[in-house]
Amino acid sequence: MSLIVQKFGGTSVGTIEKIQNVAKKVAGFRDQGHDVVVAVSAMSGETNRLIGMANEMQDQPDPREMDVLVSTGEQVTIALLCMALKNIGYDARSYTGGQVSIVTDSSHTKARIQEIDDKKIHDDLDAGRVVVVAGFQGVDESGNITTLGRGGSDTTGVALAAALGADECQIYTDVDGVYTTDPRVVARAQRLEQITFEEMLEMASLGSKVLQIRAVEFAGKYKVPLRVLSTFKEGPGTLITLDEEDSTMEQPVVSGIAFNRDEAKVSVLGVPEAPGVAAQILSAVGDANIEIDVIVQNTSADKKTNDLTFTVNRTELSKAQAIVEKIAADLNAASVDVDDSITKVSVVGVGMRSHAGVASKMFKALADEGINIQMISTSEIKISVIIDERYLELAVRALHTSFGLDKEAEA
Amino acid sequence: MSLIVQKFGGTSVGTIEKIQNVAKKVAGFRDQGHDVVVAVSAMSGETNRLIGMANEMQDQPDPREMDVLVSTGEQVTIALLCMALKNIGYDARSYTGGQVSIVTDSSHTKARIQEIDDKKIHDDLDAGRVVVVAGFQGVDESGNITTLGRGGSDTTGVALAAALGADECQIYTDVDGVYTTDPRVVARAQRLEQITFEEMLEMASLGSKVLQIRAVEFAGKYKVPLRVLSTFKEGPGTLITLDEEDSTMEQPVVSGIAFNRDEAKVSVLGVPEAPGVAAQILSAVGDANIEIDVIVQNTSADKKTNDLTFTVNRTELSKAQAIVEKIAADLNAASVDVDDSITKVSVVGVGMRSHAGVASKMFKALADEGINIQMISTSEIKISVIIDERYLELAVRALHTSFGLDKEAEA
Repeated sequence: MSLIVQKFGGTSVGTIEKIQNVAKKVAGFRDQGHDVVVAVSAMSGETNRLIGMANEMQDQPDPREMDVLVSTGEQVTIALLCMALKNIGYDARSYTGGQVSIVTDSSHTKARIQEIDDKKIHDDLDAGRVVVVAGFQGVDESGNITTLGRGGSDTTGVALAAALGADECQIYTDVDGVYTTDPRVVARAQRLEQITFEEMLEMASLGSKVLQIRAVEFAGKYKVPLRVLSTFKEGPGTLITLDEEDSTMEQPVVSGIAFNRDEAKVSVLGVPEAPGVAAQILSAVGDANIEIDVIVQNTSADKKTNDLTFTVNRTELSKAQAIVEKIAADLNAASVDVDDSITKVSVVGVGMRSHAGVASKMFKALADEGINIQMISTSEIKISVIIDERYLELAVRALHTSFGLDKEAEA
Repeated sequence: MSLIVQKFGGTSVGTIEKIQNVAKKVAGFRDQGHDVVVAVSAMSGETNRLIGMANEMQDQPDPREMDVLVSTGEQVTIALLCMALKNIGYDARSYTGGQVSIVTDSSHTKARIQEIDDKKIHDDLDAGRVVVVAGFQGVDESGNITTLGRGGSDTTGVALAAALGADECQIYTDVDGVYTTDPRVVARAQRLEQITFEEMLEMASLGSKVLQIRAVEFAGKYKVPLRVLSTFKEGPGTLITLDEEDSTMEQPVVSGIAFNRDEAKVSVLGVPEAPGVAAQILSAVGDANIEIDVIVQNTSADKKTNDLTFTVNRTELSKAQAIVEKIAADLNAASVDVDDSITKVSVVGVGMRSHAGVASKMFKALADEGINIQMISTSEIKISVIIDERYLELAVRALHTSFGLDKEAEA
C-alpha cells in the first residue's frame, strides 16, 4: 500500500462523464489498497469563460478579484468529483486551496506555494477517504484567495506529493507520456519509459508542453517521483526520475528533440565596445518583463564593435524592438534588425555530459539537409540552434533519425 | 453619512450589464457620502446550473459537497461586481462567506448564521472601500463551506446590517415594494409605504414572495430597518418597521390580502375520541419533514368521534396521505379524505388587534360572493380561510375592495 497523488487536468474533467471516469480510475487505485489524494483543474473551457467575463467587466481586471473569480473553476470540479466518488461507494472529501490550507505569497494570478498544512488530509486518509484538492489555488497569510498561474494545477499536485511524502505523483493528461519529439512532426517519435528531471525541464521549456515547468522544478527539488500518463488510455506513461550517477551509463546520449515555434530574434549590430553595454540593453528588456531566451554576442568583423543577438517570444517582439531601438540610438549602434520567422530546435539528453561529439553530429545532420544555423546555445544537457522556421520539420526529423530515436530503429 | 447594507438578488446581477448597473447604483450612494456594504446572490440561472450538474453526478448529492459547489455562484458575482466598481473608479473588495467570516452551524444546505466577524469589513470601510460579500454562504467552525438555503442572500444582508449596526438594510429585487396584494390578481393593488415586521412575516409566509421569511425574522429580532425596493426602477420602496405602540393608531386595520395556491388538505374523519390522538397523527406527518400549515379539529356530528383536518404543501400531499392512511387504520378512523384544489386567503394587519369585527367583515364579503369557507384559522394580526381554489381571484378582489385597499378608493 502506498500514497499516490493524482492530478487531472481540465480536459480530463471536462464533462460530467469525464469526471465520472476519473472517479472510476481513482476507485481502481483505492481497490488496490492505495491511499489517494487527487488534485484537479477547472473543467476545460471554464477558466476561459470566467476570464472572458472579467475582461468584459474591467479593462485590466483587478488581480485579487481575478483570483476570487477563477478559483471557482476548480471549486466546482472538486465538489463534482467527490459526488461522483460517493455515488460509486467511495468516501471522499473536497478542499479548496484555502481550506487545506495551501499557503502562498500574495502575488495574485502568479502566486508561489510557501507551505501546505497536511493535517486535514492525513486525518481524512486515515478515515479511509479519498481527498480531492482544488488545483491552481491557495490563500495568502491574510486569507486572500490566490492562484498559481495558468497550469498551476500540476504544481499543486507535486507540492501535495512533497508535503505528504507521497510515493508517486501521477500527472494525468491527454497524452500517454513524454515523447522523443512531437509525434505530429515526426511519425516515428516514441514514448520514453523514463526521463530525468533535468531533461524534462529542458524539454518542457523548449516547447514540449506536457508538464508545467514549475511543477517539474518542484518535483526535482523535493525528489518527488513524477509520472506522466494518459487519462483516456491505459499504459505506464513516462516516469520522471532523479539523474542518479550509476544509472547514467544506461542513458541514451540524446533523449529527445525539442522545438519552439514562438521565438523571434532581435539583433543589435555595431555596438561600440565598452564594458556593460550588453547588460544595459538586456536589462532594459528584462525590466519591461520581457523574457529573453537565447543570447549570443560576437565581436563584429571590424573588431571594434560587437553584434548582440537575442530571442524573445514573438508576441513581445514589437515591444522589445521599441525598447532596443531607443537604447541602440543612445549607444550609437549601427542598426537593429528583427526577425520573427525563426524557430529553435534542441537536442536534449543527460547522456551528452559524458559523450563528446553530440554538437558536431547535430551540426552535420543539419548541414546535410542544407539548413543554415543562425545562432547556437548550449548547456550541459542540451544544444539549441536557431534556424529559419521553414526548415523546422525537416530539422527535427533529421535530428530524430540521426540520434537513433526513430521507433523502427529500436524495434 | 450613514452605513447602508444593500442586497442584490440573482435577477439584479444576472448579466454583465446588470452587474455594471448595480455598480452604478452603489456608486451613487458612495457619492452621497454613505458607507456601503453589498451582499449579492449568484447570477440568475447559475445556482440551478450547478445543482443540475450535482444531480447528474449523484442521486442524492452529498450536502457538504453541494455547498462547496453552489457557493461558487456568489463567489463569481462578488469578484465581477468589484471589478465593475473599480472600472468606474470606486475602490472595492470582495469576501466569500468564509473570508468575512460568517460563521454558521454545520447544517449543510440550510445552515444558520451564528456569528459575523466584522473587523475586515470595518477596516475596508475606513479605507474608503465598498465591501462586497457573497450572500447565502458561510463557514462552520471546522472551516467547511455552508449555505443558508435558497434565498439565503436576504438573510446575509440583514445579518451583516445587524452585525455592523447599519442604518438601513436595502433589499433590491425585481418588484418596487410590498403590495397590498398581488397586482397580477388585483389591478388596483398598491405599494405600501411601510409595513411592520409582523405583517411582513404573515404576508411572506402566506405567499407574497418578496422577501425570505428568515431575513424578516432576523431583521425584526435585531431591529434592523429593512427596505424593499427595485433594482430597475427608482422609488422609495417599502420600509419594514418595528410595530411601535404609538404608531399603531395610524395603521390601517388591514394592510394586505395574502394568498397561497400551493396548499392541499388532508381530513381524517371519525377519529375515536381519546387523548393524544391528534398529536399522534400530526407528529407522524411532522416526523416525515412535511410542514403542516392550518390545523382545525372539530367534534363530529355524533359527538363520539373527532374530525381532524390540516393543510400541507401540494407537493407533499401524496406522502402525507400515505402516512395518515396508515395511522388512521391503526386508530380505526372512519376515513381519510384529501383535496388538492383548495387555496388559502388571508387578511393581514396589525390594526386588527385593536379593531373588532374584521372577521365578520371578511366572512360577509366572501358570503356576498357566494364563496363557501372550508376552514378558518386566526392569529393576532391575520385571519386565514381555506376555500375552493376556483374562487381565489374573486375572493382576493372582494376582500381588497372590502377593506378599502383599492388604489382609486384612496386617491
